[in-house]
This record gives sequence, structure tokens and C-alpha cells, in this order.
Amino acid sequence: MSLPFVVTFGEVMLRLSTPGFARFPQSGHFNATYGGGEANVAVSLAYFGLPAAHVTRFPDNDLGKAATQLLRQHGVDTRHIRYGGDRLGLYFLETGAASRAGRIIYDRTHSAFAQLQPEAFDWEEILEGARWFHWTGITPAISEGAARACREAIRVANRRGIPVSADVNYRRNLWQYGKTAAEAMPELVEGCDLIVASTNDAAEIFGIRPEPGADDAYQSVCQRLMQRFPRLKRVTTTHRGVVSSSHNTLAAVLWNGRDLVRTVEYPIVPIVDRIGGGDAFLAGLLYGLLTDQHDQQALDFAVAASVLKHAIEGDANLATVAEVESLVKGEVGRLVR
Amino acid sequence: MSLPFVVTFGEVMLRLSTPGFARFPQSGHFNATYGGGEANVAVSLAYFGLPAAHVTRFPDNDLGKAATQLLRQHGVDTRHIRYGGDRLGLYFLETGAASRAGRIIYDRTHSAFAQLQPEAFDWEEILEGARWFHWTGITPAISEGAARACREAIRVANRRGIPVSADVNYRRNLWQYGKTAAEAMPELVEGCDLIVASTNDAAEIFGIRPEPGADDAYQSVCQRLMQRFPRLKRVTTTHRGVVSSSHNTLAAVLWNGRDLVRTVEYPIVPIVDRIGGGDAFLAGLLYGLLTDQHDQQALDFAVAASVLKHAIEGDANLATVAEVESLVKGEVGRLVR
Amino acid sequence: MSLPFVVTFGEVMLRLSTPGFARFPQSGHFNATYGGGEANVAVSLAYFGLPAAHVTRFPDNDLGKAATQLLRQHGVDTRHIRYGGDRLGLYFLETGAASRAGRIIYDRTHSAFAQLQPEAFDWEEILEGARWFHWTGITPAISEGAARACREAIRVANRRGIPVSADVNYRRNLWQYGKTAAEAMPELVEGCDLIVASTNDAAEIFGIRPEPGADDAYQSVCQRLMQRFPRLKRVTTTHRGVVSSSHNTLAAVLWNGRDLVRTVEYPIVPIVDRIGGGDAFLAGLLYGLLTDQHDQQALDFAVAASVLKHAIEGDANLATVAEVESLVKGEVGRLVR
Amino acid sequence: MSLPFVVTFGEVMLRLSTPGFARFPQSGHFNATYGGGEANVAVSLAYFGLPAAHVTRFPDNDLGKAATQLLRQHGVDTRHIRYGGDRLGLYFLETGAASRAGRIIYDRTHSAFAQLQPEAFDWEEILEGARWFHWTGITPAISEGAARACREAIRVANRRGIPVSADVNYRRNLWQYGKTAAEAMPELVEGCDLIVASTNDAAEIFGIRPEPGADDAYQSVCQRLMQRFPRLKRVTTTHRGVVSSSHNTLAAVLWNGRDLVRTVEYPIVPIVDRIGGGDAFLAGLLYGLLTDQHDQQALDFAVAASVLKHAIEGDANLATVAEVESLVKGEVGRLVR
Amino acid sequence: MSLPFVVTFGEVMLRLSTPGFARFPQSGHFNATYGGGEANVAVSLAYFGLPAAHVTRFPDNDLGKAATQLLRQHGVDTRHIRYGGDRLGLYFLETGAASRAGRIIYDRTHSAFAQLQPEAFDWEEILEGARWFHWTGITPAISEGAARACREAIRVANRRGIPVSADVNYRRNLWQYGKTAAEAMPELVEGCDLIVASTNDAAEIFGIRPEPGADDAYQSVCQRLMQRFPRLKRVTTTHRGVVSSSHNTLAAVLWNGRDLVRTVEYPIVPIVDRIGGGDAFLAGLLYGLLTDQHDQQALDFAVAASVLKHAIEGDANLATVAEVESLVKGEVGRLVR
Amino acid sequence: MSLPFVVTFGEVMLRLSTPGFARFPQSGHFNATYGGGEANVAVSLAYFGLPAAHVTRFPDNDLGKAATQLLRQHGVDTRHIRYGGDRLGLYFLETGAASRAGRIIYDRTHSAFAQLQPEAFDWEEILEGARWFHWTGITPAISEGAARACREAIRVANRRGIPVSADVNYRRNLWQYGKTAAEAMPELVEGCDLIVASTNDAAEIFGIRPEPGADDAYQSVCQRLMQRFPRLKRVTTTHRGVVSSSHNTLAAVLWNGRDLVRTVEYPIVPIVDRIGGGDAFLAGLLYGLLTDQHDQQALDFAVAASVLKHAIEGDANLATVAEVESLVKGEVGRLVR
Repeated sequence: MSLPFVVTFGEVMLRLSTPGFARFPQSGHFNATYGGGEANVAVSLAYFGLPAAHVTRFPDNDLGKAATQLLRQHGVDTRHIRYGGDRLGLYFLETGAASRAGRIIYDRTHSAFAQLQPEAFDWEEILEGARWFHWTGITPAISEGAARACREAIRVANRRGIPVSADVNYRRNLWQYGKTAAEAMPELVEGCDLIVASTNDAAEIFGIRPEPGADDAYQSVCQRLMQRFPRLKRVTTTHRGVVSSSHNTLAAVLWNGRDLVRTVEYPIVPIVDRIGGGDAFLAGLLYGLLTDQHDQQALDFAVAASVLKHAIEGDANLATVAEVESLVKGEVGRLVR
Repeated sequence: MSLPFVVTFGEVMLRLSTPGFARFPQSGHFNATYGGGEANVAVSLAYFGLPAAHVTRFPDNDLGKAATQLLRQHGVDTRHIRYGGDRLGLYFLETGAASRAGRIIYDRTHSAFAQLQPEAFDWEEILEGARWFHWTGITPAISEGAARACREAIRVANRRGIPVSADVNYRRNLWQYGKTAAEAMPELVEGCDLIVASTNDAAEIFGIRPEPGADDAYQSVCQRLMQRFPRLKRVTTTHRGVVSSSHNTLAAVLWNGRDLVRTVEYPIVPIVDRIGGGDAFLAGLLYGLLTDQHDQQALDFAVAASVLKHAIEGDANLATVAEVESLVKGEVGRLVR
Repeated sequence: MSLPFVVTFGEVMLRLSTPGFARFPQSGHFNATYGGGEANVAVSLAYFGLPAAHVTRFPDNDLGKAATQLLRQHGVDTRHIRYGGDRLGLYFLETGAASRAGRIIYDRTHSAFAQLQPEAFDWEEILEGARWFHWTGITPAISEGAARACREAIRVANRRGIPVSADVNYRRNLWQYGKTAAEAMPELVEGCDLIVASTNDAAEIFGIRPEPGADDAYQSVCQRLMQRFPRLKRVTTTHRGVVSSSHNTLAAVLWNGRDLVRTVEYPIVPIVDRIGGGDAFLAGLLYGLLTDQHDQQALDFAVAASVLKHAIEGDANLATVAEVESLVKGEVGRLVR
Repeated sequence: MSLPFVVTFGEVMLRLSTPGFARFPQSGHFNATYGGGEANVAVSLAYFGLPAAHVTRFPDNDLGKAATQLLRQHGVDTRHIRYGGDRLGLYFLETGAASRAGRIIYDRTHSAFAQLQPEAFDWEEILEGARWFHWTGITPAISEGAARACREAIRVANRRGIPVSADVNYRRNLWQYGKTAAEAMPELVEGCDLIVASTNDAAEIFGIRPEPGADDAYQSVCQRLMQRFPRLKRVTTTHRGVVSSSHNTLAAVLWNGRDLVRTVEYPIVPIVDRIGGGDAFLAGLLYGLLTDQHDQQALDFAVAASVLKHAIEGDANLATVAEVESLVKGEVGRLVR
Repeated sequence: MSLPFVVTFGEVMLRLSTPGFARFPQSGHFNATYGGGEANVAVSLAYFGLPAAHVTRFPDNDLGKAATQLLRQHGVDTRHIRYGGDRLGLYFLETGAASRAGRIIYDRTHSAFAQLQPEAFDWEEILEGARWFHWTGITPAISEGAARACREAIRVANRRGIPVSADVNYRRNLWQYGKTAAEAMPELVEGCDLIVASTNDAAEIFGIRPEPGADDAYQSVCQRLMQRFPRLKRVTTTHRGVVSSSHNTLAAVLWNGRDLVRTVEYPIVPIVDRIGGGDAFLAGLLYGLLTDQHDQQALDFAVAASVLKHAIEGDANLATVAEVESLVKGEVGRLVR
Repeated sequence: MSLPFVVTFGEVMLRLSTPGFARFPQSGHFNATYGGGEANVAVSLAYFGLPAAHVTRFPDNDLGKAATQLLRQHGVDTRHIRYGGDRLGLYFLETGAASRAGRIIYDRTHSAFAQLQPEAFDWEEILEGARWFHWTGITPAISEGAARACREAIRVANRRGIPVSADVNYRRNLWQYGKTAAEAMPELVEGCDLIVASTNDAAEIFGIRPEPGADDAYQSVCQRLMQRFPRLKRVTTTHRGVVSSSHNTLAAVLWNGRDLVRTVEYPIVPIVDRIGGGDAFLAGLLYGLLTDQHDQQALDFAVAASVLKHAIEGDANLATVAEVESLVKGEVGRLVR
């Protein structure tokens, strides 16, 4: 087997969702799948035909095995997964509809991943021959150990000249182990070449706000982020318009230091499953960049990939390159025979 | 257990609905739940945190027990339910979609409720300490006995100073036992403080039509209703706009003797389950009035509650106060983590 | 049993579709039903109250029996079905949603129908007393034997004065047995009184394109088709507007040699199941013509029938005349109690 | 279509059963099918390749249509079914397992069948060309009208020389309309050539008990039945041994006026669905007699058919002649490829 | 509401089981219910018609509410449940069959119950008017806080003269918080009137083994337990014979200080769900004792209740007194109409 | 990744089975999985922890991808799978129960595998480093191309000194392409070190029957097979006793040229899924031999593995070594916590 192009690192959880439109107290069963922000990127890349390996830690039980199997089924290299610890993190999902909001109950504390020993991962070996490394801001929020493993991975990637991306993805209610995002994230983002960060993320994590009077607030934030983190070559985000739980719109914008690249805005109606929409975007962007598309092409591909993800059940985008390209060209609603 | 605030009275049926979009001849199974206009109000109030007791009669078999259990599961006080009679009323539902109409087949004749003995219900005891009594126009339409029990309940409530509400809800194809709505309803509505009645209900049941040339037809009807029934303090109705079986709009209007209070119009798309939308409205209105909101607040809450119900499977509104208030504030489409 | 009014002829396949919004690799089960373009017409007519018989060939195994049973369940006369051959043709369906296209994988080669012996069908007996015969362009595309049986059926119908209709329905990736549509179809269409043909069908199969500068391109195509095939009395097609996989629009147009009859355009949202939409249109048109409606009425009925089909699961339109007429009148979104 | 060999008459109910091993309060859905003692015989005969027509009355609604469709799907001639009345009778089934008993809740009062008008059935036309007529003791227990229709059918059959069979099937809790089985049944059984009757049936309905000191109690009962009802040529019954709700045994015995014919005893484990086991027996017996088997052959076939039914879901036996004959030969447990 | 007769105390978990015979990696969904050793006793008693209240702690989220609702649905008084803490304990179940063992993965650490504050429960109020208090050896094994709450409850019950029972139920892999069963249990069992304890439990927890040469080893253990714990009036256990995962046998034995009472041995085949079999036994025994049956009657009832539980899905026994009594009388395999 | 120990070669089909106990005409959906005799061996070995690669050919469509994904999910190396051809072979399964036989309808003609080009597989590369090669008699029965590929694989394995096993598995109704088993198999079996062959297989394929008067007929057949095919070191078979479709027994016997090794006979009741029982046996035997167990140990492991497979849904044995060893030790019916 050829070595993987992309390596991702982060927690994978069991997702338990109520079927159809059922609310929690109505449901006598839960649909079960496995996902996590970084692993979703790896799965999507595998469907795009780019080899990807996911690095994580699972409990050494049948659930950890089942999670591994799902990644392997979808074509992700699982050889660097470690086993041990108490439990698999999980979350419960009640899918929203129309005016009713979706709801998530997280149950991820004390997970095998949160309890990982950083030294269990030999990043020199893991990143041998890799073309890209990806992490998200959720990982350093989970535990000191996870943050340290992430830092080490970035350090090795930087030393080897492997580009690094991150979805900074600020979630206040994580970060329970003693550090704040503002304390931990800057050191990690310093090693990044590309980040997904909204105006809000920049403010909350880095205290960076748009220059007053800037023509474009987001461009201003990006420029300040690049000043602060000189390795950064691209900063990007999606803009989600919300009509209802069943109807969103999506567009994206990317600053590459020279141009502010924008996409068209897509309607998304009905939404089948919005979980992992951001991960699908990032995977699409990596696909574009790794296949040497220019930034407009890559961003168009990325946002179309994210739009398609909303029509697919589960955390991960199972769309192919052909399907994304077809949407980029504006083909919708055909029946492919 | 503290005594319930609200007491509701009416038939509860087994609802058997085809799954998904299946038509009757396509379906090898039926989804089963239990509901009825008045019980739906009690369940919704229980989810709003207001104690509610439902009074009804079930057959003394496993279906009657299962119906009781569903009410109890949802927090409704079931101690005043009586058992006996031949069968549980039921109805079959084929949910509509897009241009295809939904269909209901009722099978409720000869039910345990229709055969009730009025004297089996000791309303003095049942209403002891109650803060509100609610019934609908379906109950007196079912049988002479049900009508008499309803009349007695209203009489006791009036004597005790407990406010009474009714959804007059005219359905011509009920009223099979010899009396018409026009004959039976006036005596009952005389004991009411609040009714839900559309212009059509007023015309069909009470022969009341808007004054020719009135500025607002509905206000005119309400004024004439209040002249006829002096105890009435509020008359209200919802306006449903119908785009398709999957897409409705909803707004409400209420006349309180002084002002014609109106709400905004909400889009409802897609409709998950429209059964019980009116009951959710009434429950929302009672919640508002019983928590001392002014009429505009209460009506806004009520119509938002009804809108949310359309996104919830089953007859009853399982939304919480926080969810309804969030919709009143215009928050839609978020993912609550 | 009185003799059937309409006889249809063509292959019926087992349809295996992923449940809900699942993609092929996600699905641990397939929903199963049976359908085919011509049989769908027969089923729809049976629901409209017009007797219909379907003629086909099934393998002599439990799947052939189950397919027969489904037709019989829906009221289609199955006495002329023949049994033998290797296998039942089948197709796999992944239903699209929003921006994700639906997908079909056909697996129909070497089917019992493709292997049929034309002489196994005694069309004189089959068409005894029939009022209409219907076929589609899929049948002669399947095999030499199927084409010959179709030709013989048309010949007998013509001789007996039974009107013949066809949905010419050009599909390039069929026609694998050595003949092309352009070679085989003209002889068959010569025997037709009514065809469904789009501008594209006319160009691809018959090389007929609109007269340059014609006021109405479709009318021009129809006129040229009628010149080429003098028996033709009506040529019709539907116009499908595609917003997304969940949202289409539909209208129809018919040229009867004198007038270009048009319908209103209906929105279809959400689409429950678009398979068989064209067959539902044709069945609606036949119903109109066979019940002596004038062309505008018949076409209005036909397009409304097709619109309703999109809200019904499976290949066939299970709507009744009352339901279609209700939609023609513009009634949507009611709850029929 | 050739005329049917066998005509059956009786009520068909909607059967709503909890899925798997669920109890009534645990079940959020019910599996739905349609069945009735006499219709089950017709379905089984249709699977045996003998044409059969079922005569009944359904409400003129979608449930009545769905019930008709199920019979038609299984090959039963439905042309003599009449439509009208209030409701479809139904019953709820909780399937037993191991030490837990199965439970049935009947809800069949006031059904369309119970309300039938005897004159709505033209038995001269219905029985034209029939080879056998079958009824059960449930029909005259339902209502005066049903009893009268049954009597008329037997009268016409007798006059035309068509053999008549009945499963006398005494159920005390039916017979609510004023007559008792003891009053109504003798007149009907007088017209029968073959009955299924247990020792208990004979005692409860006809007051016939075995002659004290008889060698074989059942033979003695049969002989006395034949003395009382001289038209009777065969009396038969099954013996069910009960180990648990999941494990029964079954054998049969038949007195033909000369010999007491017996079968081997079959184990039945596990029981998939025991409803309709007696109907499957009767259908098997009719098949044997109508295909000119001698009594031992016919009874062996009948009991094997009943045994097979216990391994088939639903009310009716969907086994073929080949399957029953294979069991008669003692072949079990093969995988038929 | 009258005060409850029986109060139970212990953790309730979400149970997630694979459907049918699926293994963990095969299952795309989990059946969901809620249960726990002590709560199962309360539910069973409620089905027996004895009021019961369960005391526990749930997280203040939708899962905690759903668990509460399930208890309430089944008739258990939930007013003393406290809310708070991080998460609901849960376990995953793969049901065994034939030669394949069932498997449980526990995920209950850090649960809301484990984190309970003993002072949150006012046992004087909770036990006001109670007739019995029940706990199991799982509770003190979970956490120091749970053990202290249990101790306090027993203390109050003893002081009030309320009988106390315990299923000592030794599980080595619990007891992770620093104490061992041998250290913690004796003090708690001192307050008990009745315990379920096997020979193995007695040895592992109390170091009590049968007197060498004793006629009956279990009687000897019971006698020594009573010497050590003088309040004990009854010691009992079940004997499970294991043929396969689908086939067990069950009997029980009880020492009351005078007699060694034994039951017959029941076969259990097939096993529908063995979880909660011991809880059903204990509930049956309490029912017997609380309704003043003598020990043989009570033990017969208890073991029959446990046998029935094995035929019921979920953790709790939903059988009624009539059903258990019917089994005690040896009635099996009937269809109750 | 280390190179695989075992390479298997053969067709994988989509298996479509009716759910629960449904018969073909009753089922509105099919459970879907993928399996084949040789691939089942690879999956089982992967669960035993032995690397295995499966070699086959799939159509280049979503079903071929899904089949690949299932193998990959279960840990099988899929890198040598080739894509192309028309369709995926499939089969329909109606699971038997009690006295009702299971039924299979094959639909595998013209499959991608049957149409394979032998030269598409580079066996030198595929078998590089392999420790074992396994095939079955189904492969050369499918097509000339499959037979040639099989022959080439055996030739390469022999040259490289890699042991070869085969399940000769005679099925008369395959072998449709012009050769008979008697013509094709001897050349292939000549290259084998171990075969699974029953007395019947030996007679039908090789014309080898036990020596008249032999002490043990099977040993005699084995000896003659070894004389004819000198490379053979072991010949083995299982003995299946059939009580019903739900109850079998299983034992095995193996001749190694010196001893006739036998196992105990296991009861299998209930049977969850008997498909793949023989493949599970062979995989167990390979596991034993490849981990250097002596023949008795290996055969005991093999038959226990097969017994366990009957309690697992789907074609492949998902049991672990620990589970099989536990059954070998006689542990059944425990609940593993």
C-alpha cells in the first residue's frame, strides 16, 4: 500500500441519533454511526480518492473495534490507531426540522481519547511520507494529553515541511481541563499553513477583531491573523444562512494573502444531515489544493462538497469527486442512470 | 403530589398511521400512538411544567392501559380515568405530502368514552383545587352521556369559579346520536370564559355571522359571540394558510373585548405532523394566561407553540417553554449543543 | 370478469431502493417493489377504475410469483403473463435529495422478458375486446424477441381497430442487441395513434427537428411527426423544471393536429418518488381520452396525475380519480376526514 | 377466468400484532395484515392451485380496499365481496413466547360484516359452478344477518348438490345478538357434509358426549353426530399438545363412518405464528378430498399443512402443495436451492 | 396518591442493545430502554399492583427525563428522583443465542448516580409510610457517596421498622473507588431482613462457606449468614441451569430459619431477554410476602415471575399477577382471547 | 502492512434475504449483505487475527464498491480485487424455520466474476509471501475463465511451495459452461494439500466410493482420494444432523493419512443463519493448522467455529478465537460482562 497523503488526528465518537423526526423521549431506538471532525475529513478524502490515515485512540472493546471498522470500510488507513482507556466518547443527536432546533447531548468526558498518553504516538513514523496534516481546535480542548499530542504532531510536521491545516472551531463548553483556548491555541496555530476561522473564532480565541473601518471585516481579520501567525498562507470560513432547521444557505470566503476569494451561495433544502458540513468543506478544500487547483477552483469545490454533505446521512461526506464537480457545474436534480 | 392546575376532559383514541409516505394499501405496519384534542392540551401543559390531569374513559384492557401509560409517561395525572365499556376508539392516518392530501379514517363509534355514564365522574372531587377546565366541541358530539358529563363539569367549574375554555371545533360528521351542535353547544359555551372559534364555527354552530360592513369580520363575530355568551372574555382562532400538504403558514388572532390582538405569520415547511396543531395552540394560550402574560405575549407564545408542534411526531406537542420562547424570539435553525 | 379495456405490454423489474436518504454503501437493507413503465400504466388505470391487463414474462420462481401478486393486488389482470427464462430483471435505486442526484443501477440483461419467444403471446386472444393497447420504446430496445412481440401486438391492434399509444422514451444505453432505435422504432410508431415524445426523442430516434423559425418548436416537431406517421392523432410531452432533486415543476403540452393544448405548471416539493412520473401522466391521459374528456380536460387530468405520483412511494400511481380531480380543481393541503 | 372450485364465506379482520416479542405497552407500532377463518382457507387453497372465491362484506373505505387487495394478491377471487357499513372488524395480537401466553383483544363488534343484509348476496349466482362451500361457526355467532346469509348459502349449496364443510369452532364470547350456538348451529350443520368438531365443541353446541364406555371417545362422538346429522360424511379434529407458547405438537383424527383415520404427531418448535393453524388444516383436507385422495392421504396432507402454517407469519398458510408433500414425506431442514 | 408500599434505590442506566441477533459491528442501530436492578423491582411491583417509588439521580438532560418518563409510564412513583451530575450511565448489550454468549459493555463510570451527594436524599421523608425498602449490592459498589446514601436509607428504615431487602449481587469489577465488598457490605447487610445471596456471594463477600459435611450446603450458608446478621429472617437464591444462551432452567430455594423451601425447576426456552431475571424474582418474592402469602407460595410466585421475565423484552418484568399465577398453576401455551 | 498469510479466491455475491420469518411474497424489503464461500473464509480468518486477502472481480459500480467496503470493514485485504464486467452476482434467501425449509434463488449468471479474464490476475504478485491459498469447487464451475484463473493460482502456489486447500463442494446445477466437475476438478485437486469432501462429493466428482467392506466408509474414501491425489495430506468433512430447519447437529471427521480424527457432536438450536457454516469450519481448520495446533485441536476448533457461525447473522463467521476456544471448552450460555 502506498503511503497516505493526508494524516488527520482527533477523537471519534459513537453518534446515537433518534430516527426520522423523533424526539428523545419518543424514541425506542437510536441510529448508530461513528464520526469526529478530523476523521470526517479523512473519510471524505478517501471517497475523493486521496489516501488518508486517521490517528486516534479507542477503548479496547467491541465499540472501539466497530469504530475502526467503519473508518476502514470507508477506506481510511487505521494502522496508527491506538487502543486502551475506559470508554468511547459518544453523543446523542435529535435532528431538527422546520422551526424545531436540532439538539446534541455530548457524553465524551473520560474517553479513551481524552486519556491518551502523548508518547503512544510516534509522529515521526506516522507522518513519514505524508503530504498534509490536519487537526481541529476540539482536540486541544479535550485534555492536556490530547493537546500535547497535537503539539508534537504539528512540530514534527513543521520540521518535515508537511503543510498543516486546522479548523479552529471554538467551543466554549469544552476546555474543561484547566487551560483556555486563548492559552493553548496560539502555539498550535503558529504551526499552521491554513486555518478555518470565523470572525467569531478569531475574536474569542485570539482576541483579533476586524480593523475599525475596514472595507471587509473578514479580510481584515484574516490579515491580522496572518500578521500574528506568519506561517499562515490561507484563512477561510463558510457563511451559513439559516432559514430554518430544514433550510440553510451556504457560501465560503478565503483570504490567501492577496485575494479575497468568494463562492456563490447555495440553497440547502431540505437538510438531510448537517453534522460534518464544515469537515466536508475542509476536505474539499484540501482535495482542491492537493490536486493543484487554484484557490477559486478549490474553494468552489469545497463549498459544493459541503452542500452535498447536507444531503447525506451520517457525519462524513460520502460524495465522490464526480458528484462534487457536477454540482460545481450547476447540475442538480438529474437521475443518474 | 400537588393538585393539578388544569383539568381536561375528552376522548383519547389509538392513532394508527402509515409509516413515512406510505398509502394505506402499501403499508404492512402502522405506527401507533394515543391522542385526543383535550388530552393533547394536557400533555403539552405538562411539558410546559404546568400540572395537568386528563379525565376520560378507557376500556379495561391492555390498550386502555397502554393509553393511560402514554399519558402518564408524558407527565399527565391519570388518577381520574375510569375503565369499562367495549372498545378504544381509534383512527387511521395516512400522512399527506406535497400535492397529496392527508387522510383520516375514524373508527370511534361505540367506544368506551362514547358509552360513559356521566355519574361515574365526580366533578366536585376532580376539580378540587383546579385552576382551569378545558373541553372541546368533539365531546358533546360523541354521545348523550359525554355531553351530559361535559355539562356537569362546566357547571361545577362555574360554581367553583374555575375558568373554562373550549375549542368549539365543529365537525358535522360527528353528532350522530340525535342532537345537533346548534342544539347542544350554546348551553355549554355559556359556561366558558375563553373559546377557540373560527368564523365558520360561529356560523355553523351559533348562526352568528359578521355584521355586514364590519371593519373586521372576525372581530365582529367575536363581539356578537360575547353578546350572546356574556361570560366569554376571550375568543380566538388561528389562520392556516395552505400552500401544500407539506407547506402551511400559521397566524392567530384574539379578541379580548377591547383589542384585536394579532401575531406574525409563520411559515411551516416541511410539516412533520399537523395533527394536534390546534391543541398545541390552545395549550400555549393557557400557559400564557396561567403564567400571567398579557394577551399579546400569550398569543405569540400560543401560535409559536402550534408552529413547533407541526415539527413533532404524534398528536401532542412535546416542546418545552424554552423552545417555544426561542421561536417567539425568532431563533430558528440552530443546533442546540 | 368483464374483458379489460386497456392492455399494456412490457418488462416488470424488481426495484431495490435504499431506505430514506441512505446511499448504497450505507444501506443494510433495500426496500423492494416491482414496476415497469407499461405495468405502471396498467396499475394506475386500475386505481382509476378502468380494467387493465398487463402482458409480460416472468421467471417461474418465487420472485416472478411475487411480481405477479403485486400486479394482482393492485387490480391488474395477470392472466396473460407467461413464465419461464432465467431471471427477473432488477434495478437498484438510490433516491436523491436536495443537491444530491438520485442514482439507478440497472441489472436487467438476460431477463426472462428479454428472452421471451414472441410466439408465446397470442395477441388475437389477448386483445380480444380490448379498447386500447399501450407500449413504450423500452420494449423494442431490450431484445429482438421483445421487439418482434411488440410489432405483432401493434399489428393485431391495428387490424382490430384498437387505438395504440406509446411512450417512445429514448434510452441510448439500452438497444444492445444489434438494432438501433432509429432502425426499429419507425415501423412500430407507424401503428400508433398517440405518442409521448419530447423534442429530443424526435431528434434522436426519427431525426425530426423543429422547422427553423417555427413559432413553436414543439408544435413544429409534432407536425412533422404526424406527416411522417399519418396514423398519429396526438403527440404529447411533459416539461419538467428542475430546481433540485427534491423540487421540480411539471407542465404538459399536447398537439392534436389542430391545437397546441397546454396545462398550468405545478410545483412538486418535496418529491417523494419521481420514478414512474411519466407513466402516471400517460395513464391519466388514457383515462381522460377513454372517458371521453376533451383534450384540455384529459391533459389537465394527466399532468395532475403525474404530479400526484411524485408524492407516492413506488413506481406506480396509486391515486384515485377523485384525488386527481381534486388537484385539478386546485385543492391542496386539506386533511380528508 | 374459469369458475372457482371452492367458495368460502365469513368475516375478514384487520390484524394488528406487536412486532417480535413486544408486549402491548412496549410497542410503538403494529404489524398489519388481514385475515379470517374462512378467508384463510381460500388463500391456502389458492396457494395449492385450487381456485377459490371469498364472500364477505367490507366497509367502503381504504381499509376495506386494502383487505380486498390482500385477498386478491394471494390469488383469491374477490368479485362477490360487498361494500358498505361502518367499520372493519379488527383484532390486536400479542404473540406469546416460552412461558408467556399469547393474547388477543378482539374489536369486531358493529363491523361491516356484522351489519350485512343477507339479501345482498345472491347465492345462486355466487355458487354457480362451485365445487365446495365452506363456512365456520364464527359467522352465525356474529349477527342475525350473518347467520341468515350463512343459512341461505347452505340451502342453495345443498340444493345444487355442492358439498358443504364447516369448522364449528365454538366461542362462547361471541353469540351476543340473542341466539345461542345451541339454538342456531344444528340447522346449519344439517346441511354439512364435513365438519371440524372437537369433543368439546360437540358437547357445548350439540350436547353430544361420548357414549359411556366407548372404546374411543372421539369416534363415539362422531358416530352420534352422524346420527343426528345424517348428511355428514366426515367428522374430524386436530389434537394440539402444548409444551409452551413456543412449542406445540399436532396430530389429527377423522371419522368417515367406517374408519377412524389418524396421523402421526408432529413437533412444532419454534412456533412462528399459530393463528390460522386450524384453517390451514381444513384447507389441506379440502385439497386432499377435491383432488381425490383417499382419507388417510388427505388427512396426512391436512395436518402437515397445518404444521407448516405454524412456521409462516400471518393468518394464512402460504405453503405450496410441493412443500406440504415434502413434509408428509418427512423431509425437514433442507435448504432448497 | 396513596403513599407507596415499596421504596427502591439504585442506578438506572440507558441500555443500548443490538437488534435481533446482530453483533456489535453489524448493527446500524441500537434498541434503547432504561433499567437497573432496583428500578426493575419497582416496575415489576407496579405491574403487580403494588405502589412503588424509585429513588435515583439522573443528569438534568433529555436522557434523564426520558428515563424518568419510562419509570412513570410503567407506574413507578418518580417524585424522589434528583437531577444533576454529568451523564447517564449506560450499557451496551449484544444478546446471545444458541452457542454464542451474550455480551455486555458497561459504560457507567462518572454517572450522575455515582456522583450523588448523600445529603440530597431526605430518607425520613422518602420512607414516610413505606412498607418495604430494597437495595442491591451494586449501589455501594458504585461510589462512596452511593454507599453512604444506601447506609443512611437502611438506617432510617431500621429505625422506622420498615423491612429491608437486598440482592447482594457480588460483581468484582465494580468496587473501584477504594473499598471492597468485604469491607462495605457487612454493615449494610446488618440492617436487612431478607437477602438474595448465592453460595458464591456468601463466600466472596462475607467469607462464609458451608459447614464441612453439612447435609445441604446452601442451608448451611444461610444458617451462618443468619448467625452473623441476626436481623435476617430469610435468605434466598435462584439456581440457573444453563443449556445454551437460548435455553436455561430456573428454580429457587429459600431458608427462613426453619425450613428450606424449594420450587420446581422450570425450563426457559427460548430465552427472549435474560436481563433482569433476578430482579423479577425478588419483586415476585416481595409481592408474595407483602400480600401475606406463606413462604412456599411466595417463592413459587417469585420463581414463576422470573421465568416469565425471560419471555419479555427489556430489563423489567411487565407480567401481571394473573399471568404469574397462571404459570404457577402450570398453564402454558394458551392463547388468551 | 505485513503481507497476508492466507489468500482466497472466488465470487462474492449480494445476498438479499427476507427479514425475520417472512416468505418472498410477504416481504417489502430485503436485508442486504455480501458473501461467498471463499471470502467468508477470509473474513473469518481476519476475525481470528490472521491476515487474509480476498481475490475476486466486481462490477465497477456502487454495488461492487459496497461489496469491497464490506470485506475491508471486516479486515480483509482487498487490494487485488479487479473491477469490470456487467453485474454483481446475487442470491435471494428465504430463511427456513421449524418444518419450513429455507429457500435460495440464485441470480449469478453473467456476473463480473464469471466474465473475468484470467490474465487480469498476476498470481506471482498476489501470492508473494502468502502462507496458504484457498479455493472452492464453485469457482471452476462458474466459467471457463474462472476455472483457468483458479488453475493458474494453484500452479503458482504449488511452485512456490504454498499449501493449497479446497472445499470441493459439488453443485450439479452450476457447471453450465460446457465442462463437468468430473472433467475439470481432478487437475485442480491434484494441486491441493487439504480438501473438504464428503463421501457424496468423492463419488460425484471423482467416481471414488468406499472400498466394499471397509471398516469406515469415509476413511476408505479418504485413502482412495489420497492415492489418486498424492499431494493431499488431509481430507475432512462435517456431518450435519437435521432435526428441523431450526435445529441441527454438527460434528466433523478428518483423515490425515494416519488417524481418523473425530469431534464431539454439537447441538445447534436455534439456528440463526446456516449460510457459511462450511466456510466457518474451513477457516477454523486453517487457523488451527496455521497456528501449529495438532489435528485434533484444529478439528475441534474448526467444528466449534462452524457451530458458532450458525448463531451469527450473515454469510461470514464474526466470532473471535476467544469465543471459539470458549465453546471448545464447553462454556455456553454465559453472559460476558
